[in-house]
Amino acid sequence: MHDRAAPAPLRPAPPDSAPGPVLVADIGGTNTRLALADGVRLRDESVQRRVNADHRALGIGGLVRDYLATQGAPALDGACLAIAGPVRDGAAGLTNLDWRIDLAGLAAAAGTGRVAILNDLQAQGWALDHLGEEALAGVQPGRGAVPSGAARLVVGMGTGFNAAPVHRVGAGLYVPPSECGHAALPVADEDGLAFARWLGARRGFATVEELLSGRGVEAADLFAGLAADPAALPRNAAGAMAALAAGDPRAEAMAQRMVQILGRVCGDLALAHLPEGGIYLCGGVARAFLPWLGRFGFHAALADKGRFSDWLAGLPVQVITDDYAALTGCAARILEGSERPGG
Amino acid sequence: MHDRAAPAPLRPAPPDSAPGPVLVADIGGTNTRLALADGVRLRDESVQRRVNADHRALGIGGLVRDYLATQGAPALDGACLAIAGPVRDGAAGLTNLDWRIDLAGLAAAAGTGRVAILNDLQAQGWALDHLGEEALAGVQPGRGAVPSGAARLVVGMGTGFNAAPVHRVGAGLYVPPSECGHAALPVADEDGLAFARWLGARRGFATVEELLSGRGVEAADLFAGLAADPAALPRNAAGAMAALAAGDPRAEAMAQRMVQILGRVCGDLALAHLPEGGIYLCGGVARAFLPWLGRFGFHAALADKGRFSDWLAGLPVQVITDDYAALTGCAARILEGSERPGG
Repeated sequence: MHDRAAPAPLRPAPPDSAPGPVLVADIGGTNTRLALADGVRLRDESVQRRVNADHRALGIGGLVRDYLATQGAPALDGACLAIAGPVRDGAAGLTNLDWRIDLAGLAAAAGTGRVAILNDLQAQGWALDHLGEEALAGVQPGRGAVPSGAARLVVGMGTGFNAAPVHRVGAGLYVPPSECGHAALPVADEDGLAFARWLGARRGFATVEELLSGRGVEAADLFAGLAADPAALPRNAAGAMAALAAGDPRAEAMAQRMVQILGRVCGDLALAHLPEGGIYLCGGVARAFLPWLGRFGFHAALADKGRFSDWLAGLPVQVITDDYAALTGCAARILEGSERPGG
Repeated sequence: MHDRAAPAPLRPAPPDSAPGPVLVADIGGTNTRLALADGVRLRDESVQRRVNADHRALGIGGLVRDYLATQGAPALDGACLAIAGPVRDGAAGLTNLDWRIDLAGLAAAAGTGRVAILNDLQAQGWALDHLGEEALAGVQPGRGAVPSGAARLVVGMGTGFNAAPVHRVGAGLYVPPSECGHAALPVADEDGLAFARWLGARRGFATVEELLSGRGVEAADLFAGLAADPAALPRNAAGAMAALAAGDPRAEAMAQRMVQILGRVCGDLALAHLPEGGIYLCGGVARAFLPWLGRFGFHAALADKGRFSDWLAGLPVQVITDDYAALTGCAARILEGSERPGG
């Protein structure tokens, strides 16, 4: 699951001219965002959001070509895609649309050999050095100075769940891929065990992602409803979040489960990756829970780890509120990472 | 938790002479192993094993000086310590002995500015490229070719539990530290929940390490004994393993818990780090369980992860049987990694 050097040769910029822009794209399960970037700055007027289903027949390469045509087919200095799924040998896809692309296909579609394909969490990780204060919301202040070169950890909760550790190696970043959302859902008590069993019976296997995601909001909300009324009906994630804002007890039971397991999972991931530079939550579901983390016990659940409790309570935790951070990360990956295969 | 460049200046080898040997040391909770290495080859006659308690007053720096005196105080080309504990800002220690050392202290004791301090799992990770077939025992064959540059994962179960992912970045290795043994013990059913509660009540918090370690063997064995007889007495890990070999049901219940949780934890860690190059188990307890992994369900527990089951069942898994691998890793870290701070 590494992006590799593309088979196409690097095409240097023409002499005595500024380099062209870089194509960046964030291919989610439902929408794709595309933009042109100069360095890590996105050209405002170039940002587009496309609904994948409207372009199903084009495929990813066709969508890139179609987008570039709307921008006057500029000569590009590079192209980087972030995709919501595993990247293996430089190839990735969306199973729901039968979309698939590899580095050679991206190079051909974009007309540049300087290409990279990342998963969406790796792209968020590459963005960290370029996010201003307005792109972040504080959850837990850090204690003490962050060591220079400290690792950081991006944790994404949205359509799915995943994370990416962000290491500084020499002068560059190294952001390895992960699929930690498919790990087993942690269980702390009888209620958690009953929920994991119920979820596993419905979804095949009770993973972290089956709870810490948009569909997990619906599952946890339904489980809370069924506890009170065996005939309770499901409601969608937006409905459950609206009910939470209105003080609905069923939605509050959902929120308590989501927030406490999120804290627990973040604590376990922090022990795996030692992000002394902080934890960065991202994704639509993480942003939706930002107002609720304190009330439902995120901080206590994060720090509930015996000997390492103090260390965890002292880690800085923030939420990335910039919805375009993955595009910025794609641009940074091309700008900073072109000589670094594997990250 | 990064090793940094030492403040002392590099002292180049005298011109027109072969470089001196490298000092390598593996400081465990009970014993310290020391050796001199040429490149990554340990000098057989130089290997010593010291009982820490016999040298308590010397401290780590004093022990290094004392060892070097027995070797004729050679001019060193570098020095690297592996230590069974977290390394923070280039400093580490053993809490049980009040031993502590940092890079400057190591540089002073060894008389070389080319120094590194790793945790013991990082050292195992640095050794991987230098272990012959005789140093490894197969647990699960891999399926298909391992991609070049694939990540690997070392998982250590001995006095404690920890892991280290091993990444290839550019021409070198990057082996970040971890403290994943302090994550919460996974729970899969009522029996697992009852055990985690019992363990947490005894040990403060039910971590992975409290089960997957030498003291965990004793705990799981006692828990199995108490289930049959409330007056059951504890026995030490060696006694429990001997009873296992003799077919004792109490020891078999212990082994089933250890092996299945080890498989489950390895699966979760594999999803976090994606080691397509394989999982390498190491440590005395892992070696002791090598004959029992198949019988008590390691493979099924490793692969019990829903969508990723096939991927996990296809990962190569081996046990590092070379008891001196950490020393080899220390030598490799100096040989290959001297220009790579942070890994």
